[in-house]
Amino acid sequence: VAEYPLYHGGTVRLQLAVDLVEMAEARRLLDLTADLVDIVEVGTPLIIREGVRAVTELKSAYPHNLVLADLKIMDAGGLEARIGFDAGADIVTVLGAAHEETLQGALASARASGGEIMVDLIAVPDPAARARDVDALGADYVCVHTAFDVQASGADPLLHLQHVGPVLRRSRLAVAGGIAPATARAVAAHRPDIVVVGGAIACSQDPARAAREIRSELRRAAAKE
Amino acid sequence: VAEYPLYHGGTVRLQLAVDLVEMAEARRLLDLTADLVDIVEVGTPLIIREGVRAVTELKSAYPHNLVLADLKIMDAGGLEARIGFDAGADIVTVLGAAHEETLQGALASARASGGEIMVDLIAVPDPAARARDVDALGADYVCVHTAFDVQASGADPLLHLQHVGPVLRRSRLAVAGGIAPATARAVAAHRPDIVVVGGAIACSQDPARAAREIRSELRRAAAKE
Repeated sequence: VAEYPLYHGGTVRLQLAVDLVEMAEARRLLDLTADLVDIVEVGTPLIIREGVRAVTELKSAYPHNLVLADLKIMDAGGLEARIGFDAGADIVTVLGAAHEETLQGALASARASGGEIMVDLIAVPDPAARARDVDALGADYVCVHTAFDVQASGADPLLHLQHVGPVLRRSRLAVAGGIAPATARAVAAHRPDIVVVGGAIACSQDPARAAREIRSELRRAAAKE
Repeated sequence: VAEYPLYHGGTVRLQLAVDLVEMAEARRLLDLTADLVDIVEVGTPLIIREGVRAVTELKSAYPHNLVLADLKIMDAGGLEARIGFDAGADIVTVLGAAHEETLQGALASARASGGEIMVDLIAVPDPAARARDVDALGADYVCVHTAFDVQASGADPLLHLQHVGPVLRRSRLAVAGGIAPATARAVAAHRPDIVVVGGAIACSQDPARAAREIRSELRRAAAKE
């Protein structure tokens, strides 16, 4: 955490999920917000659309941010993670639903590249049990993630968060899925290392203001402790 | 099946998984083999590397083949499937591990685009139970898939295949993962609609001969019935 003192005042880092599918739009959003976030996430739809050249372009345009490639790897962990790191990603995601061998392959690529792996627990039936496994395997981050497709049905990310955080020994905690200014403080109370925000910043009329609001909520949560 | 009379003699179609990461290599392979296979699969690593322009380019180069985009969708099913279909894919894959809402979103995009959805059961703990669910949701294909990362540990795809096939009512059966000439006939005996072959063709010294060998094994299996 001390490595990126410019980007976070408290104990939590802010990751902006860029789920737009047009590079020009992504650049417009990040020109407004990159200095307000720690980690730029190149979202899965953008990678599907553009390939990892989107990672290379955004890392080059915003060299002071960490860049996460949301590859959601399910197989060929070694190969696919290497494609992400070779393109300039600092962090690559692997699905918690994948086989352990896939995570191990991705971790080996990360170690060889000086990068990190985030395991995304999206749609995993028992997130706390899986978190314990992937923590033991050496995942750098474990992400409690409420899928976009179930956010409308009122799924509560805090429910899993409170069970996953306590089982982690080595991995740091991340949380994603529909987080907005109104919910950021409650999320931050669970002491994640990374809070991922997408639409609440990207779809705001004033993305920089939305990012500042969330940062301020996260700081307040940190100050409370 | 009757729609593609040129490409399969029996009841089973051959899908070639192009898991190379360089477009030039993919084109060289397909120039040798496209007329011997029914479906060209644009593999996940190639999509990560190049984005869906790889789908567009291969569909345009091999218009007589169906093209499957192996997006392995885990979230944002409607959006991500649409990106695949808009790029020219005939079939897009969704992970069986995803939420049902994600599959439903992808199916809606498929219906709107005239495309089809293959649900990939890779790493799903109980493939037969999940197959029953996604069949009921309207998946066009259900794929029993032994992950690349566990093929070395001797996982047996036939084990799941014999349990998944019988539960399907609407969906057609596909099978993938380490299938080679020596195993093609045993796989075909389970009457899949699609047999997916990757390395056994792509990494062969003579890819066209390997494709012909597998076609002939598949035909023999069909003739036996």
